[in-house]
Amino acid sequence: MNRIVLGVEYDGVGYQGWQTQPHGKTVQDTLERALFDFAKVRIDTVCAGRTDAGVHALEQVVHFDTDLVRAMYSWVNGVNSFLPSSIAVKWAKELGQVDASDQQGFHSRFSAYSRTYHYVLLNTAVRSPTIHGRAGWFFRPLDLELMEAAAKFLLGEHDFSAFRATGCQAKSPIKTMYEVDIKRNGDLFVFSLRASAFLHHMVRNIIGSLLFVGSGRRPPHWIGELLESKDRSLAAPTFMPDGLYLAKISYDRKWDLPESNAQNLPFIARI
Amino acid sequence: MNRIVLGVEYDGVGYQGWQTQPHGKTVQDTLERALFDFAKVRIDTVCAGRTDAGVHALEQVVHFDTDLVRAMYSWVNGVNSFLPSSIAVKWAKELGQVDASDQQGFHSRFSAYSRTYHYVLLNTAVRSPTIHGRAGWFFRPLDLELMEAAAKFLLGEHDFSAFRATGCQAKSPIKTMYEVDIKRNGDLFVFSLRASAFLHHMVRNIIGSLLFVGSGRRPPHWIGELLESKDRSLAAPTFMPDGLYLAKISYDRKWDLPESNAQNLPFIARI
Repeated sequence: MNRIVLGVEYDGVGYQGWQTQPHGKTVQDTLERALFDFAKVRIDTVCAGRTDAGVHALEQVVHFDTDLVRAMYSWVNGVNSFLPSSIAVKWAKELGQVDASDQQGFHSRFSAYSRTYHYVLLNTAVRSPTIHGRAGWFFRPLDLELMEAAAKFLLGEHDFSAFRATGCQAKSPIKTMYEVDIKRNGDLFVFSLRASAFLHHMVRNIIGSLLFVGSGRRPPHWIGELLESKDRSLAAPTFMPDGLYLAKISYDRKWDLPESNAQNLPFIARI
Repeated sequence: MNRIVLGVEYDGVGYQGWQTQPHGKTVQDTLERALFDFAKVRIDTVCAGRTDAGVHALEQVVHFDTDLVRAMYSWVNGVNSFLPSSIAVKWAKELGQVDASDQQGFHSRFSAYSRTYHYVLLNTAVRSPTIHGRAGWFFRPLDLELMEAAAKFLLGEHDFSAFRATGCQAKSPIKTMYEVDIKRNGDLFVFSLRASAFLHHMVRNIIGSLLFVGSGRRPPHWIGELLESKDRSLAAPTFMPDGLYLAKISYDRKWDLPESNAQNLPFIARI
């Protein structure tokens, strides 16, 4: 079997998240239907990071094993011709012969050493239809410096239980946050978070709590207190999925995966 | 009767354009239903520039006459609570008592002295799902200088029949083009056109022809030849509506309408 790796972009609006479900209205189901239409055989995929309903991906990484031999541009253009406008394969790469149980081979999820998410937020009095679905919206004025001060508490290794959804299946709540960057251009904010891995709802729970700080409802050190409490009920509600983009999965250079341009910022967030 | 003026933003995806139709699936129908739900009386609206199916507006200007007395913030927040996420009233302004036949009063269409449209274009090998519906897409590499040279032929007063749709209802094909600006940031282009008025499909027909020039299929002076020919059949096909935004309608300062920020660029085009 050959192991094929794909970079996949999608607009999460209208999908019940990444992971396959009986109703078939997920990104994985839609991608696997297109792979079947292209390859005429069933192909099971594994992704780097499952995204929730309404969450987008600029570069989800997906792998699968197949006996089929096709040129790499066919895995891009051929599969794209069977996909709706809301999903596209951006690149494909073959990583050689593998055994399905091969522990040394590339695995989109287990080989990843960090993930980057962007959250795009519109901070205006009135909502914006031309950005709807692809940015979150918060109408109370936000203070960038307060949020930056709060974000510093998140850096490093922590037990992130206070930002973990009830149904989270991760083995451990302990993750390492490498970077939290917040950019502002007028009424548009972009939050970029890079961590070893993320718990279920972790980014949206962190954003919700940072907005409590940015709008003056809580002081910056409250974020540190939340982490120490490990108590989900003390943090802010889960913020809307609209502005959340899975941007980049990082792997060892030995796999030589295509380098995506810049930081894979969504177009609306090139600020 | 009081004449009320609204600034309206909308995402054209899913609508059969601005103008009311029996099936009711237009922006005007949807706005008038929300006005009815808010005011409990029928309100007929007049807009500055009718947009086609799939075309967006950052600031469409709409007026109507009513006996109803409401605070201006109610015409914004109250009406918005009855509108779907794809349409929003951004501001409201009362322009005093008017007679419906008043020739001196403000009229969203007849008082306008220029209109600005933006066309946002993605120039990449593979289409992008996270920008789909809100930008056009062209996969052949484009040359900015060639298109800028071609755009110069459009400036000034011309008979724009070569770029006019068959069904266009304008009295005259002669319009004045004040400005054609093309910005580029990597694989994103933004074309901004400001004219006294636009014929039906005029921007999309111009963009289609500029892309013929930008991709090397025609030389820049071909645009001048098209204008002189006044022959629609010689120009390029009408380009897709996805990237087209009605951005700004300009009026005499005496009306003192709210000034929108910057050039009303869509967020994806802040380059």
